[in-house]
Amino acid sequence: MILYRSMFRVFLAIALCVSTTTVYSEDGYQLWLRYNKLTDAATINQYKAYTQGIVLEKESPTLLLARQELQLALQGLLQTKVTFSNTFQGGGIIIGTPSSSGIIASLALSDKLKATGDEGFVIVQTRVKNKPCIVISANKDIGVLYGTFHFIRLLQTQQRIENIAITSAPAIKHRILNHWDNLDRTVERGYAGFSLWDWHRLPGYIDQRYIDYARANASIGINGAVLTNVNANAQILTEPYLKKVAALANVFRPYGIKVYLTARFSAPVEIGGLSTADPLDANVKAWWKKKIDEIYTYIPDFGGFTVKANSEGQPGPQNYNRNHADGANMLAEALAPHNGIVMWRAFVYSNEVPEDRAKQAYNEFKPLDGSFAKNVLVQVKNGPIDFQPREPFHPLFGAMPKTPLMMEFQLTQEYLGFATHLVYLAPLFKECLDADTYAKGKGSTVAHVVDGSLENHSLTGIAGVANIGNDRNWTGHPFAQANWYALGRLAWNPSLSSETVAEEWIRATFTNNEKSVHTLKDMMLASREVTVQYMTPLGLHHIMGWNHHYGPGPWIKDKPRADWTSVYYHQADENGIGFNRTATGSKALLQYTPEVQKIYSSLENCPEEYLLWYHHVPWNYKMKSGRTLWDELCHRYYQGADSVRRMQQQWSTLKGIVDEERFQQVSSLISIQHQEAIWWRNACVLYFQTFSKKDIPSGLEKPDQSLSYYQSLEFPFAPGIKPKW
Amino acid sequence: MILYRSMFRVFLAIALCVSTTTVYSEDGYQLWLRYNKLTDAATINQYKAYTQGIVLEKESPTLLLARQELQLALQGLLQTKVTFSNTFQGGGIIIGTPSSSGIIASLALSDKLKATGDEGFVIVQTRVKNKPCIVISANKDIGVLYGTFHFIRLLQTQQRIENIAITSAPAIKHRILNHWDNLDRTVERGYAGFSLWDWHRLPGYIDQRYIDYARANASIGINGAVLTNVNANAQILTEPYLKKVAALANVFRPYGIKVYLTARFSAPVEIGGLSTADPLDANVKAWWKKKIDEIYTYIPDFGGFTVKANSEGQPGPQNYNRNHADGANMLAEALAPHNGIVMWRAFVYSNEVPEDRAKQAYNEFKPLDGSFAKNVLVQVKNGPIDFQPREPFHPLFGAMPKTPLMMEFQLTQEYLGFATHLVYLAPLFKECLDADTYAKGKGSTVAHVVDGSLENHSLTGIAGVANIGNDRNWTGHPFAQANWYALGRLAWNPSLSSETVAEEWIRATFTNNEKSVHTLKDMMLASREVTVQYMTPLGLHHIMGWNHHYGPGPWIKDKPRADWTSVYYHQADENGIGFNRTATGSKALLQYTPEVQKIYSSLENCPEEYLLWYHHVPWNYKMKSGRTLWDELCHRYYQGADSVRRMQQQWSTLKGIVDEERFQQVSSLISIQHQEAIWWRNACVLYFQTFSKKDIPSGLEKPDQSLSYYQSLEFPFAPGIKPKW
Repeated sequence: MILYRSMFRVFLAIALCVSTTTVYSEDGYQLWLRYNKLTDAATINQYKAYTQGIVLEKESPTLLLARQELQLALQGLLQTKVTFSNTFQGGGIIIGTPSSSGIIASLALSDKLKATGDEGFVIVQTRVKNKPCIVISANKDIGVLYGTFHFIRLLQTQQRIENIAITSAPAIKHRILNHWDNLDRTVERGYAGFSLWDWHRLPGYIDQRYIDYARANASIGINGAVLTNVNANAQILTEPYLKKVAALANVFRPYGIKVYLTARFSAPVEIGGLSTADPLDANVKAWWKKKIDEIYTYIPDFGGFTVKANSEGQPGPQNYNRNHADGANMLAEALAPHNGIVMWRAFVYSNEVPEDRAKQAYNEFKPLDGSFAKNVLVQVKNGPIDFQPREPFHPLFGAMPKTPLMMEFQLTQEYLGFATHLVYLAPLFKECLDADTYAKGKGSTVAHVVDGSLENHSLTGIAGVANIGNDRNWTGHPFAQANWYALGRLAWNPSLSSETVAEEWIRATFTNNEKSVHTLKDMMLASREVTVQYMTPLGLHHIMGWNHHYGPGPWIKDKPRADWTSVYYHQADENGIGFNRTATGSKALLQYTPEVQKIYSSLENCPEEYLLWYHHVPWNYKMKSGRTLWDELCHRYYQGADSVRRMQQQWSTLKGIVDEERFQQVSSLISIQHQEAIWWRNACVLYFQTFSKKDIPSGLEKPDQSLSYYQSLEFPFAPGIKPKW
Repeated sequence: MILYRSMFRVFLAIALCVSTTTVYSEDGYQLWLRYNKLTDAATINQYKAYTQGIVLEKESPTLLLARQELQLALQGLLQTKVTFSNTFQGGGIIIGTPSSSGIIASLALSDKLKATGDEGFVIVQTRVKNKPCIVISANKDIGVLYGTFHFIRLLQTQQRIENIAITSAPAIKHRILNHWDNLDRTVERGYAGFSLWDWHRLPGYIDQRYIDYARANASIGINGAVLTNVNANAQILTEPYLKKVAALANVFRPYGIKVYLTARFSAPVEIGGLSTADPLDANVKAWWKKKIDEIYTYIPDFGGFTVKANSEGQPGPQNYNRNHADGANMLAEALAPHNGIVMWRAFVYSNEVPEDRAKQAYNEFKPLDGSFAKNVLVQVKNGPIDFQPREPFHPLFGAMPKTPLMMEFQLTQEYLGFATHLVYLAPLFKECLDADTYAKGKGSTVAHVVDGSLENHSLTGIAGVANIGNDRNWTGHPFAQANWYALGRLAWNPSLSSETVAEEWIRATFTNNEKSVHTLKDMMLASREVTVQYMTPLGLHHIMGWNHHYGPGPWIKDKPRADWTSVYYHQADENGIGFNRTATGSKALLQYTPEVQKIYSSLENCPEEYLLWYHHVPWNYKMKSGRTLWDELCHRYYQGADSVRRMQQQWSTLKGIVDEERFQQVSSLISIQHQEAIWWRNACVLYFQTFSKKDIPSGLEKPDQSLSYYQSLEFPFAPGIKPKW
């Protein structure tokens, strides 16, 4: 009956929202570009003072998009018809650049504009012909579009706009989504349906979704999209596919978004008919140069390549006894004349049975510092293992001063409950960005490494592995939209707080109801730590299910590689648990600066959230709480699962405030998350108990299933699994 | 620039349709349940006379859905608030059954209702307490829901409702969609995205889409859904998946939709741990009985199984030297106590190098007539080969009087341009349903075989292989929705004309503008014949691309089986082209009644649309047009391609009448269809020319590419390809 009731609620919600054009129910498709009627009368009146019209003097594809988006937003938010004109009638909003607008050229904005570069913008309230108006201006058209979206965001979030004076420019040059999308439309580690790219019907058929994807990215400043999986297929570089890519590039161009592709290093052999892909071979160089020149005939502003080489079985320069710089520079040289770049991933580990995985990227790349071409970025994951719920920052940050390092975050929740768990990732991103590398003394944060300020690099980038699919709401979980949003906002301005970003997103996406905004913010800000607790507390990591990575699998062992197992990472035994990475262990900690080492090296002082990352700790070890390690571990797991129940209660207070369809969606998802949190808790506690030989602390409910039950679970069709090829 | 312009048009369309609740653009998600404001004032006033309210005296899950849908429709179509109550206030619409409504019980409807059975309905205008009102009644709740949707359709299509008196009941008992959906969400021969069934998040997460899928089906009388691929995976029969299936069944139940699954014949071995799947083996029987009893504990109204056995490598009873009846009856026996049925597919052909594929189903099944259990339907494709653009009706229709035969149509356009070509399939369905088998003399149409009237079978069914995926508009091509719609309407009433069904769909989905309705109807009714002309004119068949079936491949030969090639079917040589299936050839024609044989047996009298299906014809043969066969073949191919251009011109007249988003979608799709029609034309004419050794008739433009170019095209990632396993 639960089900019937929920169905009726959805219907009722639909029935109650009859519009003049159509019957409509909210499905999340609009993302944060949701221009529903504002409710606060005072705010609406304040805004209406500026809705006499939109003035755009000279049109261009990008400026037209800005005007149309502004009209769309004002008409939706204020429920009033908004006209536009190419002359100033008095009042309203003037958009444009000094070169396209005589009015804007006549205003004294040049100093402000100087600071905003090619993508920044200036928004000011001023008077023209003695009439009050708002001016959105920039040096380039794309800046005007970014400024327009920023202004719309102010309205959506009900900010005061009197005397507004905003100057903004991005801290990072390349703000990019990486789509791990395959040509058959499966998405590696994708949990929101399948690929947006309908390759079969491209280039002839342009899905409205491509346009709305571009709108969403432009609204948060994302200016690049790598369309294909890092585990690349060379077919994407063949003529038929390049024509399809060009069609997407044509859609994205006016939104300021460049397309990038992944380059399969062995492409010269696979589609070029060569016998080698040796980066120093003249024929190989010639093939890539010709291929890259060809790409630019289809896509004049092609962005460049992301490359995963000599990693997890992918081909690379090491197959020919060359190093990563040899490979990257060969591609960079061919891209340079077109202003293209190479984003060469540092996520590598040797195929031989390795030493500590955490050390390998550093070992391979640090020696190459200074040997990369000017248009190469080395793309480094936030942590040294692989997108775990919590990792320390990657030791390469701060360790390659002569090389611009690009940040790679993962939005798709490969290790964080897929698209089923509510986990707001901005706190994870910020934890890494704000971490201090001490590379040049205190304040040498990862953010300053990435934004180039620490070593004065002008080539900078942040990439997010996309969590976007063809689910109607784009990301599967309505709240996962916030992680896409956060990536864009933080790449533009890494100093924004998780809280600010969350509040913007909540107001634009759900509601401006103050009490509910507060509740939602509280849920979101707590969610990542909650997930750490029920999955991998105290520094545990990489204990998930085999291959699909769904659910707990601390018992995983005896796989082709030790570092593909769980036992390798948690090292649990009768004495204790944890991976000793200090000077007495794998020495991974020694890859960091002495100041950082000092924080983690001693068992006594090591912050407990990283305890088992750096130390192998006796079960009886006394924790700060006074509990033994074993008791503390259990309490954290139980606390994590309990916190999801709290999240559930918080969400229930939004009934009737957020639309019924998304209310039901999230309610169902949180209850699945609660069941899966208990699953993680029980499976891990029961498994680790086989080593600790201790009881679950009294007062904590006993697991209702046996360890063998949890170990017996199989998920042959879990989504997002690596394709076979 | 084309692209920019089209993007702006879409935006403008969005900007101009501002509603009181939200900014909205039409994406086809609403299908034919589109309740936009009606435009004809007179009609609206006529309808408003009945909007005083909806009276539902006693609630039930299904009756509540009827009331909510009616409210939703009235409020949308008439843009007026519609209230409901459980007592008659005077006027309005009364819905219910005699047993749930005192008012309805009090009306003299019992005679009318008697004729409507368990699913039919009666809609009448009458007076209650001397107040005019409309009564929608039925014997069962589901009939009320069907009647409500029928009434809504009358409003959507602007029919007069004064003195309305409609009595309707379905001609076919089981009206079913077959989803060839795999558990990894790929869809075999699916071209509209991926599977609707998000198995990973079931049973906990109920997608709104499941509800809207059920609404759409109920609105056209579809009462069953086979959720999984006929190339079945036994995992669907395991407990975790049965719980997921049960969750879908719970959603569908109040809409009168039963769920069915495909049974992999070897399941007892694969998931049951038995050493055999021999249908006569006691352990195998016991296993299936236990499994089926288990299914009913989760899904008390489970519908039963569709089975593909001993076909294209699928396991079946013949692996154990048993026949199809042995296999079907074993399952039927276990299903019978639960009122479940078996739909056993007749699409079989031996694994040995065969004789004429067209003959094999008949050869295997006719001898089994009379040996199937009472709850078994034999499911027969409309034609003897495989869903070609045109085939004669299947010889089994009329040949198995003691066995209820179920029709299998294909909605997904495996051989008809995927989801890119506009092909309205009702004329194809009707051509088959109206064909006369002469099994019991003139008038023994296929429809009368299928509806049971010819041999007095009460167990009847029509299945459509679904063209539905997770594309936002469900079917990829907006017009492909009409094929889903047509299957439901024709399964309810096979005597409806293609034209009537098209007009209903057009008015509900696009517009009531009379001129445009006429244009759209003309496009749709012509579309199937147009496709036949540019793909397989004059009875040609099975000459498409290898494996993916995309595009032309008349040159396909040297494959594992002769009947998996094209040359096997067109038999082109220096002398002529076509497959002699007469008494002097494969004798396939002899499987039909003498009256049918007479129509096709002589080269002179054979209708030209089946000429090359039944005869091998010399290139110089004089056709009715006076042209030689070669010239006629060329002209048909060119005529087909030209007709697509005409379709393009017709569609262009709807600019500004249909919403901009769908206008752009269809415009792009028709131009792709035009390019692909020319591709088909050129590839086939150039290929057949290598045999005819004749010029393309003067006046017809020469192909711009060589035959070898067309033969060189490859499509490694064409959608819908069979999974490897």
